[in-house]
Amino acid sequence: MEEIVLETGEANSPAAIGSRLSNERAADVVEALNELEAEMAAAVLLHLPTDRAIEVLDLPGLDRAPEIVQKLPIERAVPLLTGMSADQLADVFRQMEEPARSGLLRRLDPDIQQSLGRLLAYPEDSAGSIMTTEFVSVPANWTIERTLDHIRRVERTRETVYAIYVLDPAKKTLLQAVTLRRLISGDPESPIMSVAMPRRPITLSPFTDREEAARLIAKYDLLAVPVVNGSGHVLGIVTVDDVIDAIVKESTEDVQRFGGMEALHEPYLRVGFGQMIQKRAGWLSALFLSEMLTASMQFFEGELEKAIVLTLFIPLIMSSGGNSGSQATSLLIRALALQELHLRDWWRVAIRELPTGIALGSILGLIAIIRIVLWQRIGFYDYGEHWLLIAITVAVALVGIVTFGSLAGSMLPFILQRLGFDPASASAPFVATLVDVTGLVIYFGVAALILTGTIL
Amino acid sequence: MEEIVLETGEANSPAAIGSRLSNERAADVVEALNELEAEMAAAVLLHLPTDRAIEVLDLPGLDRAPEIVQKLPIERAVPLLTGMSADQLADVFRQMEEPARSGLLRRLDPDIQQSLGRLLAYPEDSAGSIMTTEFVSVPANWTIERTLDHIRRVERTRETVYAIYVLDPAKKTLLQAVTLRRLISGDPESPIMSVAMPRRPITLSPFTDREEAARLIAKYDLLAVPVVNGSGHVLGIVTVDDVIDAIVKESTEDVQRFGGMEALHEPYLRVGFGQMIQKRAGWLSALFLSEMLTASMQFFEGELEKAIVLTLFIPLIMSSGGNSGSQATSLLIRALALQELHLRDWWRVAIRELPTGIALGSILGLIAIIRIVLWQRIGFYDYGEHWLLIAITVAVALVGIVTFGSLAGSMLPFILQRLGFDPASASAPFVATLVDVTGLVIYFGVAALILTGTIL
Repeated sequence: MEEIVLETGEANSPAAIGSRLSNERAADVVEALNELEAEMAAAVLLHLPTDRAIEVLDLPGLDRAPEIVQKLPIERAVPLLTGMSADQLADVFRQMEEPARSGLLRRLDPDIQQSLGRLLAYPEDSAGSIMTTEFVSVPANWTIERTLDHIRRVERTRETVYAIYVLDPAKKTLLQAVTLRRLISGDPESPIMSVAMPRRPITLSPFTDREEAARLIAKYDLLAVPVVNGSGHVLGIVTVDDVIDAIVKESTEDVQRFGGMEALHEPYLRVGFGQMIQKRAGWLSALFLSEMLTASMQFFEGELEKAIVLTLFIPLIMSSGGNSGSQATSLLIRALALQELHLRDWWRVAIRELPTGIALGSILGLIAIIRIVLWQRIGFYDYGEHWLLIAITVAVALVGIVTFGSLAGSMLPFILQRLGFDPASASAPFVATLVDVTGLVIYFGVAALILTGTIL
Repeated sequence: MEEIVLETGEANSPAAIGSRLSNERAADVVEALNELEAEMAAAVLLHLPTDRAIEVLDLPGLDRAPEIVQKLPIERAVPLLTGMSADQLADVFRQMEEPARSGLLRRLDPDIQQSLGRLLAYPEDSAGSIMTTEFVSVPANWTIERTLDHIRRVERTRETVYAIYVLDPAKKTLLQAVTLRRLISGDPESPIMSVAMPRRPITLSPFTDREEAARLIAKYDLLAVPVVNGSGHVLGIVTVDDVIDAIVKESTEDVQRFGGMEALHEPYLRVGFGQMIQKRAGWLSALFLSEMLTASMQFFEGELEKAIVLTLFIPLIMSSGGNSGSQATSLLIRALALQELHLRDWWRVAIRELPTGIALGSILGLIAIIRIVLWQRIGFYDYGEHWLLIAITVAVALVGIVTFGSLAGSMLPFILQRLGFDPASASAPFVATLVDVTGLVIYFGVAALILTGTIL
């Protein structure tokens, strides 16, 4: 028994795993480490060559990087952290808790401490928080040859060398951007400005949202965008791979929020039971409390007692309103996120959703009438003497509710944006709840209008 | 009157718009053209310098590119199309209808016709359909100097020169990839292989899904991935900007499908009324028909008549099941899309969702009991003699339904994937409908169990 344990133990020792992983690509090492406990992952990391360990820590895909770093002996942690790129390092410190954070920070080089401090000051999800400070910039009075020499020297320490930023020699402010492909095609003796882009570069403020950074990079097919401060100095660059990570994270969060919960920031299986309940119970309870307004059906109890048959269609009618609302919301969330539409376009959407809702409601109303007539005629169910009036009530209510659902669902993202929230916080369950409560009022209102004097 | 019209006419003439736009960035020209009718956009395009017009047509952001191309006089269309990059050109032809498509295709250079034919043969959303054939490849026996000279010559006609593919000199199969940054740092006299990446490049088959291409590019932080055929020849490359467009489109489609409709492939305001109804009515009607099963409550009519009070909680209970299901579905759709989880992990999810559902259901059950007790005590509503039993019925039903909702919602994406569908086709309304129907059965079942002998 002990022998087997020993054998397994050896094959799975940190040293053995480390040597197996040392020839894998960094991203594959990350994937393997993500499967291990933080303590074990840290131990394996210590058995990788330093360069490789730095490369692994530098990848945004590594889960629990702060936890892993804290499990490293401090004298091993410092050189690894020092080798990391500034943006990933800031990300690790951002997620680390006190007092570990300050303790580790103090051990780093004062220069790194300072640049880290600056990065950490930017709000989460801002361009400043995802930018890297390792970029190439040269004064505008350099030649192409001199710039290329400079790039050859610094290439190893820069996240990208494909975009080179040309600065005013005196004021050090950003003048132009040059791509490496244009640079190598130019005459070595010519000034760098001879191969600059025809236009001033697109820039970001460090406080710009990362989603906006992603939108600009995607729109202009850029490999990197410089982040500049108010006086025109380049603080860092946001690269296309930072942006892909940001887009993927953002869509995960959007889908989760649209599903009616707080966004998780970790993979499903990594989230603890307590945290999972916390992320889901809040919205679920809030929706539950709002939905309780439907229990105010109690005010219609008189009608309900007289016409039990009306209750049969409650779920059907309510869910149709919710479904049409959720369709409209999903459309508008994306249209606003992609800036296909802006706040001022709300009325263009409203005048489209109104006829759309009426048409969709009429289709469902027609189906409902057919179903009631069929069931009555075939004899599956007896809706009573006034079955035709009931069919009409259900159909009219459907038109009203689906129209209301489409309108409410499409306007909600605008309202949220107007109030300063992310339009993507509008969730399908939220819209459904909103429409459910109003839907009941519409249903009983239509019933009162059509059925009073007959069965009511 | 006529003068004013003339003036407006002149300022908005294609020539005037064209000259205004000729100094803008191509992506901004695209945005401006997207605001115009196809006919007008085509007219403006004719007033742009040819290079600029090609650049505009080459951007994936241009809506209705096929329509615009068809509005161009054919002798103007041919040089523009000839200048476009292969992947965008294929995209335009893919969306064009016959006979315009064949008519235009015949006018192109036979070489282009042939390469287009190959690209068009790949399935939509595959790596083959988004790849470009304009990449740099060199035989392995070249030196760095010779490679750089080659790049300088072809740079203008290649989508990217940052990744260079090294081929077997005899068999022309892919051996290695070299990045431009390493290339410029190498000794010009050395063989190209001296600066090659340490590992064989990651490659795609032309039939790989574009989502998988995106995942690989994001995971390994690549600027491009070569697409190779079975014998190892490079057919094209998928670049990071193609992939960003693919990711953004994919998330829009995912959100729309999660909202319970067919994905639109165009911006909201661009979709015609009829098409909008078509995209939404299908799912809405299907959900409506399924939800009709809830009208089978008719079988519980006896119970309903005896205990009208039970109907008051139907919307509340049903929506809670739907909400918890939609949360679970949104979690699993993303976890499966990001490959955090695989089909084989379904049981790990099930054994997590079971206690999660019970806990969430208990929280809602508790809230429901508190509400019923409060209303009864304060006198807002009289739930009758057996109000405590009713409170317990509602609470127990909530635990059952929320647990069922969480389980069903989390298993649905697995089931879809198992059946060969995209897990993202599971929509919030679909889950809600599934859970609604079962929810009613659970509710009345619990009621029968607890209330038989008292009010039932």
